[in-house]
Amino acid sequence: MKIGIIGLGRMGAGIARRLMRAGHEVVAFDRDEQAVAALASDGAVAASGLDDMRAKLGTPGIYWVMLPAGDPTEQTVTAIGAFCGTGDIVIDGGNSFYKDDIRRAKALAEKGARYVDVGTSGGVWGLERGFCMMVGGDKAAVDHIDPILAALAPGIGTIPRTPGREAADNEDPRAEQGYIHAGPAGAGHFVKMVHNGIEYGLMQAYAEGFDILKGKASDKLPEDERFDLNLTDIAEVWRRGSVISSWLLDLTAIGLAKDQDLAQFTGSVADSGEGQWTIDAAMEEKVPANVLTAALFARYRSRVDHTFGDKLLSAMRFGFGGHVEMPQ
Amino acid sequence: MKIGIIGLGRMGAGIARRLMRAGHEVVAFDRDEQAVAALASDGAVAASGLDDMRAKLGTPGIYWVMLPAGDPTEQTVTAIGAFCGTGDIVIDGGNSFYKDDIRRAKALAEKGARYVDVGTSGGVWGLERGFCMMVGGDKAAVDHIDPILAALAPGIGTIPRTPGREAADNEDPRAEQGYIHAGPAGAGHFVKMVHNGIEYGLMQAYAEGFDILKGKASDKLPEDERFDLNLTDIAEVWRRGSVISSWLLDLTAIGLAKDQDLAQFTGSVADSGEGQWTIDAAMEEKVPANVLTAALFARYRSRVDHTFGDKLLSAMRFGFGGHVEMPQ
Amino acid sequence: MKIGIIGLGRMGAGIARRLMRAGHEVVAFDRDEQAVAALASDGAVAASGLDDMRAKLGTPGIYWVMLPAGDPTEQTVTAIGAFCGTGDIVIDGGNSFYKDDIRRAKALAEKGARYVDVGTSGGVWGLERGFCMMVGGDKAAVDHIDPILAALAPGIGTIPRTPGREAADNEDPRAEQGYIHAGPAGAGHFVKMVHNGIEYGLMQAYAEGFDILKGKASDKLPEDERFDLNLTDIAEVWRRGSVISSWLLDLTAIGLAKDQDLAQFTGSVADSGEGQWTIDAAMEEKVPANVLTAALFARYRSRVDHTFGDKLLSAMRFGFGGHVEMPQ
Amino acid sequence: MKIGIIGLGRMGAGIARRLMRAGHEVVAFDRDEQAVAALASDGAVAASGLDDMRAKLGTPGIYWVMLPAGDPTEQTVTAIGAFCGTGDIVIDGGNSFYKDDIRRAKALAEKGARYVDVGTSGGVWGLERGFCMMVGGDKAAVDHIDPILAALAPGIGTIPRTPGREAADNEDPRAEQGYIHAGPAGAGHFVKMVHNGIEYGLMQAYAEGFDILKGKASDKLPEDERFDLNLTDIAEVWRRGSVISSWLLDLTAIGLAKDQDLAQFTGSVADSGEGQWTIDAAMEEKVPANVLTAALFARYRSRVDHTFGDKLLSAMRFGFGGHVEMPQ
Repeated sequence: MKIGIIGLGRMGAGIARRLMRAGHEVVAFDRDEQAVAALASDGAVAASGLDDMRAKLGTPGIYWVMLPAGDPTEQTVTAIGAFCGTGDIVIDGGNSFYKDDIRRAKALAEKGARYVDVGTSGGVWGLERGFCMMVGGDKAAVDHIDPILAALAPGIGTIPRTPGREAADNEDPRAEQGYIHAGPAGAGHFVKMVHNGIEYGLMQAYAEGFDILKGKASDKLPEDERFDLNLTDIAEVWRRGSVISSWLLDLTAIGLAKDQDLAQFTGSVADSGEGQWTIDAAMEEKVPANVLTAALFARYRSRVDHTFGDKLLSAMRFGFGGHVEMPQ
Repeated sequence: MKIGIIGLGRMGAGIARRLMRAGHEVVAFDRDEQAVAALASDGAVAASGLDDMRAKLGTPGIYWVMLPAGDPTEQTVTAIGAFCGTGDIVIDGGNSFYKDDIRRAKALAEKGARYVDVGTSGGVWGLERGFCMMVGGDKAAVDHIDPILAALAPGIGTIPRTPGREAADNEDPRAEQGYIHAGPAGAGHFVKMVHNGIEYGLMQAYAEGFDILKGKASDKLPEDERFDLNLTDIAEVWRRGSVISSWLLDLTAIGLAKDQDLAQFTGSVADSGEGQWTIDAAMEEKVPANVLTAALFARYRSRVDHTFGDKLLSAMRFGFGGHVEMPQ
Repeated sequence: MKIGIIGLGRMGAGIARRLMRAGHEVVAFDRDEQAVAALASDGAVAASGLDDMRAKLGTPGIYWVMLPAGDPTEQTVTAIGAFCGTGDIVIDGGNSFYKDDIRRAKALAEKGARYVDVGTSGGVWGLERGFCMMVGGDKAAVDHIDPILAALAPGIGTIPRTPGREAADNEDPRAEQGYIHAGPAGAGHFVKMVHNGIEYGLMQAYAEGFDILKGKASDKLPEDERFDLNLTDIAEVWRRGSVISSWLLDLTAIGLAKDQDLAQFTGSVADSGEGQWTIDAAMEEKVPANVLTAALFARYRSRVDHTFGDKLLSAMRFGFGGHVEMPQ
Repeated sequence: MKIGIIGLGRMGAGIARRLMRAGHEVVAFDRDEQAVAALASDGAVAASGLDDMRAKLGTPGIYWVMLPAGDPTEQTVTAIGAFCGTGDIVIDGGNSFYKDDIRRAKALAEKGARYVDVGTSGGVWGLERGFCMMVGGDKAAVDHIDPILAALAPGIGTIPRTPGREAADNEDPRAEQGYIHAGPAGAGHFVKMVHNGIEYGLMQAYAEGFDILKGKASDKLPEDERFDLNLTDIAEVWRRGSVISSWLLDLTAIGLAKDQDLAQFTGSVADSGEGQWTIDAAMEEKVPANVLTAALFARYRSRVDHTFGDKLLSAMRFGFGGHVEMPQ
């Protein structure tokens, strides 16, 4: 198929290249001319802007927007929306908030165009290994771009099939190939958002566990209850047949193998918007989510030395000391 | 009544003086001879040690141990246990772990003596205002020392009676006088322990609320959603008819009135053992206690710059960046 | 002053009556004609609708909207906005989301009118005791309605002044009188929102503490570590000089005095929007708020028998049992 | 080597068989004579009791105790301790509390014997795939039983080596073979305990995420923000190249593939002691562990319909309604 790709960063360029390898035609645009040139040298058609892309794609066209969430994506989708018409498909492959997807899909639908949101996990390895994709949007549009999605997906590879799914997977192999049509516009990014919320929870579970392992060497503990544990080896052995083996544990093992003290890291941990949106969603649904929330808050807390609340605790404790009357 | 008091720190001395004011005879001992002398000058009988105290109290005697929990209390109770006999009553007014009370009561009972644990809230204001006391131990022993407890308790004062309790309070006025016989040995300290667990939760609720109020001035927020709130006035107004008025809020208001920025505090917050024991109790009972636990953990967290767990999160995130293969 | 009051439910009627007692003139409207008639018989001027109210208030007028948050308030403010002009003041005394206040204030300002948001704590007792109020809006407008606010506030009453505030309170007595001008439009409801967030946290701290007390009678515990505690008396004694005394504890003592088992309650606990908005605000500010969040989630959890997540845990545990291959 | 195995349940029998396949000699005992007979028919030497086992093992002997933690293990270790002597090695392969290990190791050491604790993950698949083992105890003893551990371990299999560990793994291949000597007695079970604490956290992260996905179909949400998501396909697609792929997710996918509604499960979730001990350890070390604790508490909460605390919240809310005076 012919597809336009706007945004040629690491993800966008990887997508473009993986599509070209699978025989698709890519029209590529980025504000960075060098990024365009690099891709053109690999076989893409260079576009100098959205109008040029449209000319080169023809109508109707497929536009894959691969830009940072927020203003860059919003402006680009709006710009495409200004000229698009019946049959055009606009794909947002970034990390947009799913309610923005719902709004954009409605706006495009008024012009006869369709909007597809693709939540993507897999990062920089996607070019080689494929991208795990959660897709939202109109069924016909998603089916139409299926060759694109199938080319980007990792495929079944060496990961065993899930027992009990064989019949369903033989009928519709997309899930086991690594992509799904999750539902209408927004559903793709919603599922990806929850995915990231879970990711925070998983990461924090490991973080706390290793904190407890490390703290076991503390000289505040009774001497015969102290253990000076080798965290590097523990991470490694848990990869080997334990029930907590995971890809995040693999990363942990790699990180610890480099430096058991992780001295290169300050421990000030960023969060993207998706963790927060996940908690928003939980609250809208009235679903308790203590673990996911605690994981998010641990990141907030990692970025301040002392909260004002901590100082307030100290002030109250100071107050106990005799400087105020007891209630009577 | 005649009572021996071991430990003449701020609490012990306050108890001794309040008892003498009520006409009780106090035999006083402390390792610090000056503390003994100060109390003797107020009318107490000075004792030079436990043996001397016993001689001056006569047998059977009442011993009130008012020492730090842990070794000091344990050693003193053990020492009294070595010579005590039928009819003696040993009171632990400190913050012992309630399972220690259970053990000590059994040991003393074998010698015919009785052990009473008194959990006390009220701090340095107790001398003037009285102590709120939660008492555990054998009923006959607790009844025997009732004149002591009644003298120490705050009494009904200006706090209104609780509607619906009038008949019960007229029959047994102890609760509304500010002390209760909570149950057998250990029950007093158990109730006091949970009291402190709740205290941590209440304090943290205020701390987080004020943190959110203060954070509303952050320049990371959209300009028209920023408020530069006067926390001092907010604490004050909440004391005035709001549903979250409390003595801890009074302390908050006082602390903020001195300095809205609480600049004298670092925000490194200690915890006594009682918060931890409360969570232990919750787990033994299989009772979920997310708020009390989060309050305790916030104090732990306040005392470290960055956890090792935080660094591990960073290491995993670093791993996403392309330095490891995705699972396949 | 002359003021129109729209919404004559328990809160609105209480406000109207307290204002009339203080000598203010009230023009009253409610969809419920009987509510209007009842207030008219107490001296209010009855209005048959907003237009009639406007005629009877004259221009510029002061409108106090006391309706449920959401559509009722929004529609009424919009309706007033349609006819209002220079000098009019529209007060929202309900529980609106503070971002709605910010938006409405802007819309009204374009017509020369001003919007004031009043967060109110105190409930049904406000008529007699006064309302604790947190006010947002344009300073001139808030100052203009100061006689209204002063009449509604509880006044200093028997609650002691806060040490260290005397000079400030003598200069501006509003906070100790029970109301504050918190900031621009929205600030009043924002402060009230956080107030409610804290309230949830405080309530849950008590709830968990009493849960632990009650669970101590469990026959799963070793027999000599079980206590059958009198929760009613414990709540009462903690009111008496302990550091966790509060108005919420007073309510707890009353509830337990009626029935120690609380058998009339199912334990399915509602939450208003304000707890959720507080967590939203915390996340926008990147402030960790584990206690307030856990308190909110405990309410969500109280309203479902079993979460789907619980079932998923069981499914995973079932999977351990041999029905799936270990990772290798 | 020659080894006695006490306890021939699924795990014990699996261990015995895997050892025999590797050429080790097993002397087997269980209270259940049929279990002994079954193993004898596979080549084990049947023992009729501990004394008989000792006779058949000779001295010094290696005893692997594979019984439920608590009394069964304690009694057996004590019984072996009664007759053992210099050179004997007692291995506890169950889930003992690590402080019990420390105590037992000291007791055995007084007789010249050594105690080794082996925390094992891998469950019923261990026979075929091997057991992931975390081992505590005296270095010489652990080295002595290395052939046993090596035979039980899964070996490197198809799991890729961890980059950066190659040199270390070539020198000491145990970690990548699936077992480690974690430290002195107790260290093995301590590491296994934290492993299980992490497991709870991971499971709860998935549980909450799927709860949020499922809740997205709620008819309380605005109609255009509802998604009726296929959880089965979502679990599957996340196995395919996403960053949250794990063995627990594989189990989730299998469970959902059987029944997307998980209708066979009630959602009442058990917990072993290890989650609780992990939190105990965190508190002893003063390490905040909000996620692991919330995961544990979610299980407690899953087993009660309504907590007493929930009812107390309702009672307080009822109190707001006018049945008590506001603070003044």
